[in-house]
Amino acid sequence: MKATKRIADATQESLHRIFTVAEAPDSTLGLIEQEMSQNLVGFLNNHIVASENALTDIEQDFIDAQIPEQPAFVSDHMSHLLDKLVSQSVHTSSPSFVGHMTSALPSFILPLSKLMVGLNQNLVKVETSKAFTPLERQVLGMMHNLVYQETSDFYQNWMHSAQHSLGAFCSGGTVANITALWVARNKLLKADGDFKGVARSGLFAALQHYGYQGLAILVSERGHYSLKKSADILGLGQDSVIAIPTDENNKIDCIKLAQKCDELAAKNIKVLSIVGVAGTTETGNIDPLNAMADIAEQHQCHFHVDAAWGGATLLSNKYRPLLAGVERADSVTIDAHKQMYVPMGAGVVIFKDPSSVAAIEHHAEYILRKGSKDLGSHTLEGSRPGMAMLVYSSLHIISRPGYEMLINQAIEKAEYFADIINQHPDFELITKPELCLLTYRYAPKSVQELLANQGKNNDVAGQQHINLLLGKLTKFIQKRQREDGKSFVSRTRIEVGHYNGEKVIVFRVVLANPLTTKEILQDILVEQSKLALESEQFLPELLAAANTK
Amino acid sequence: MKATKRIADATQESLHRIFTVAEAPDSTLGLIEQEMSQNLVGFLNNHIVASENALTDIEQDFIDAQIPEQPAFVSDHMSHLLDKLVSQSVHTSSPSFVGHMTSALPSFILPLSKLMVGLNQNLVKVETSKAFTPLERQVLGMMHNLVYQETSDFYQNWMHSAQHSLGAFCSGGTVANITALWVARNKLLKADGDFKGVARSGLFAALQHYGYQGLAILVSERGHYSLKKSADILGLGQDSVIAIPTDENNKIDCIKLAQKCDELAAKNIKVLSIVGVAGTTETGNIDPLNAMADIAEQHQCHFHVDAAWGGATLLSNKYRPLLAGVERADSVTIDAHKQMYVPMGAGVVIFKDPSSVAAIEHHAEYILRKGSKDLGSHTLEGSRPGMAMLVYSSLHIISRPGYEMLINQAIEKAEYFADIINQHPDFELITKPELCLLTYRYAPKSVQELLANQGKNNDVAGQQHINLLLGKLTKFIQKRQREDGKSFVSRTRIEVGHYNGEKVIVFRVVLANPLTTKEILQDILVEQSKLALESEQFLPELLAAANTK
Repeated sequence: MKATKRIADATQESLHRIFTVAEAPDSTLGLIEQEMSQNLVGFLNNHIVASENALTDIEQDFIDAQIPEQPAFVSDHMSHLLDKLVSQSVHTSSPSFVGHMTSALPSFILPLSKLMVGLNQNLVKVETSKAFTPLERQVLGMMHNLVYQETSDFYQNWMHSAQHSLGAFCSGGTVANITALWVARNKLLKADGDFKGVARSGLFAALQHYGYQGLAILVSERGHYSLKKSADILGLGQDSVIAIPTDENNKIDCIKLAQKCDELAAKNIKVLSIVGVAGTTETGNIDPLNAMADIAEQHQCHFHVDAAWGGATLLSNKYRPLLAGVERADSVTIDAHKQMYVPMGAGVVIFKDPSSVAAIEHHAEYILRKGSKDLGSHTLEGSRPGMAMLVYSSLHIISRPGYEMLINQAIEKAEYFADIINQHPDFELITKPELCLLTYRYAPKSVQELLANQGKNNDVAGQQHINLLLGKLTKFIQKRQREDGKSFVSRTRIEVGHYNGEKVIVFRVVLANPLTTKEILQDILVEQSKLALESEQFLPELLAAANTK
Repeated sequence: MKATKRIADATQESLHRIFTVAEAPDSTLGLIEQEMSQNLVGFLNNHIVASENALTDIEQDFIDAQIPEQPAFVSDHMSHLLDKLVSQSVHTSSPSFVGHMTSALPSFILPLSKLMVGLNQNLVKVETSKAFTPLERQVLGMMHNLVYQETSDFYQNWMHSAQHSLGAFCSGGTVANITALWVARNKLLKADGDFKGVARSGLFAALQHYGYQGLAILVSERGHYSLKKSADILGLGQDSVIAIPTDENNKIDCIKLAQKCDELAAKNIKVLSIVGVAGTTETGNIDPLNAMADIAEQHQCHFHVDAAWGGATLLSNKYRPLLAGVERADSVTIDAHKQMYVPMGAGVVIFKDPSSVAAIEHHAEYILRKGSKDLGSHTLEGSRPGMAMLVYSSLHIISRPGYEMLINQAIEKAEYFADIINQHPDFELITKPELCLLTYRYAPKSVQELLANQGKNNDVAGQQHINLLLGKLTKFIQKRQREDGKSFVSRTRIEVGHYNGEKVIVFRVVLANPLTTKEILQDILVEQSKLALESEQFLPELLAAANTK
């Protein structure tokens, strides 16, 4: 009995230590932290293994659903993490990994994140976040300013007003888009006479009251999948998202958009929102926002811009005009964890009208009391971390001109990459960069000539056959390159105008990492050319087809 | 021209440095980090000012909506953050701040968070998270196991299956609750004959197809406000959430619940979900889950348990029986950032049936392809950080018996606090602790006797008058205590059975912080007694009333 008590005491002592005594600087964890702090990219280069293991193999290390009955020593557990987790994670900050929207992080971010975690504020209410609440409101003000450039009086009036909010901070672009459409839905189907509004009475009663046959969300066929998800969650149904065709530059066809609006109006289907894309996920193109705003005005519907990727471009005075018209949007989504170089988990949705959020206001007895400045009364999420601090610090330390430099460089790097692809006889540029994204594929010169000839002869079937083979080759190269682990480009399927809108498999690159050099881009083409030669099936077949034309 | 180029080069150089060169250990940021690493609680004690400033004063430091045109030196910015932000943040880990659900963090969490941020994985897809995907699936498996205790075969079969998921990791309990009810809604209103299901065709068509007059969500009046928010977002409307009265222990009255179900059925309103609360936010009480499961079975509706707070109690073999019946729930919400001592931003929803998530499945061309193991196809959020790692590490380092000790101690500490409140003549325990939460108020002995007498004489108006005054006194004490900054209890308004269900203002404490000692709890009562005497209006008025009875 006494022995049991001694063990219990010892465990209690060690539990208490866990909460009070820091790891020693020369402990495993301390040493790892130092290595990481001194040189993050080097640390990741050392610990992430280059060659890829199959996911099913990795799963074998994460197979036990039992919660451990024995505590692990911190040092042992750290070795385990390095061995099984870190080694098999993705080197998102590697300058030769140009297929992701996650990039390298500024080095000041790591200690700042630690501070944020250590403070462990909960932004849902002032009571657990105090100065973080005005800080987040200021960040929302800055992002609003970035989009709408209102007067300083405007920000003075609304930024810290309890009943208003210039936007909502959230975990990412998907929640931002849901929030924007939630606001749009609740504003459209607001209380009216006996009807208490969709927020209280639901969609069924709302559509009955307003007499609509249905609602629709109109977006180009390049729109992000989160819009369909939003429509599902909000009770509108995925089919209410109507994909409008794009032109050869992946921009929405505004004539078709206007036609669809008229068509829906004739059927008594109300357009809930037109959604402009400012930086498509696959090609980085930006919709003609001004023309879309005209159509939205004409049909008196909400105009949302999904600038999750492209919003950061507004920080560049040089490239800002690419998003002309964004200031006419009712709401705008921007992800700070994309081209604002903040870690994962930082999205915002900004509202032109500071009182928009009233449509989604929620109160409770113990928090979010009416009149409080609690951020949680206007957000989809409840408890949330103080990620806004990292955006705040980045905006101050990097500053707008610093961001402009990063964004301009990224776009110019993409233009350089497009140039060397164009100059290379065996590569075909599929979509040229408007922002820092482009798509291309490996296609030997003779095969490109064959495709051109087939085009002239209207040999659609012939082109399809060749594109299918090229697609298999692209997939082969991309997969091998990823497995070799030296560099990484992603791959997607997109409709290509000059191949009759056929869906074609392509390499996709995102050149946001400031550490990516021209040499790295040249090397990627060299590596891909070599890998193509290793394809024992598709390349010979393609070359044979080209020779017998 | 040359000078401009030199400036541009210099700025470019410094931008490059930001991404490559770590802050020196003896830089401001380096020193702050060291201080924080060595002793987090000490660091916070040193830097957070004790006395509270008014929020409107703090706002003056966060007033500028302009994005800076000049970069700040990291060291200057750090001083600014310490001065304006950290100093005015909330000391969530202070052992004498017992009013929050955010508590102290184990010391290994800080370096691990840094590792997580540095790796900057995006859990939406395997391509940007690799080993983090099986890791998160394992964590969901462990949490499923914690609730449902299935066989190891079960976990072998489903944990890593592409078409299945044992739950969804998310930023917090609100998103978890929305996800659970989203699944419930889509399963209930599934495709049927010509009808394509609510996910595709929306709620309006769904209710028409199924011929329901409406849907309802039934939860006790102590249910979390996020349920109304969920009902709003999901298009059901807040009024579809029906609050069922509770008994004197803040537990749902199952007779009234069953009656309401019958009543709704008679009106052709389908119960979408019955929601059990396992740890109410205000009092920590747990609904009779088994009896609720019976009613849900009888009415063939979804049974969700919101165990955002109380779910961690399942880690304690001793107190697990308090949640008996949770294993009969179709879905369960648990927040790891509450009593699992993980930083803000870690919630989970667990599904009994691994194929439940098919109801909310989403796919896209470039990611979340069908058959992939991408986590993003089954989550409300899109891009998400690797927070699951912190849960994984905590479960390994603390282990189940370690958690049991933390949870048992917290409950026993609450029982101790209840004892000293009961023994103190001038304090009144309002709700006794079932978990580690309780509510109480300052009420001098003579005033308590007056209330008791009024009760005997059915003097409802008299009681109301006294309770109103006591409420004002409670508010006064709580506010002063918070402003003094030595300790913190929160405050709420709850209906109290023995005062005819009157809503009464009370102190609320959450005793989850392992560093809170018995001495601290004793001191809190001493401090509150002193503060009561400083009330120049309410206390004398109360004492006078008690003396003239």
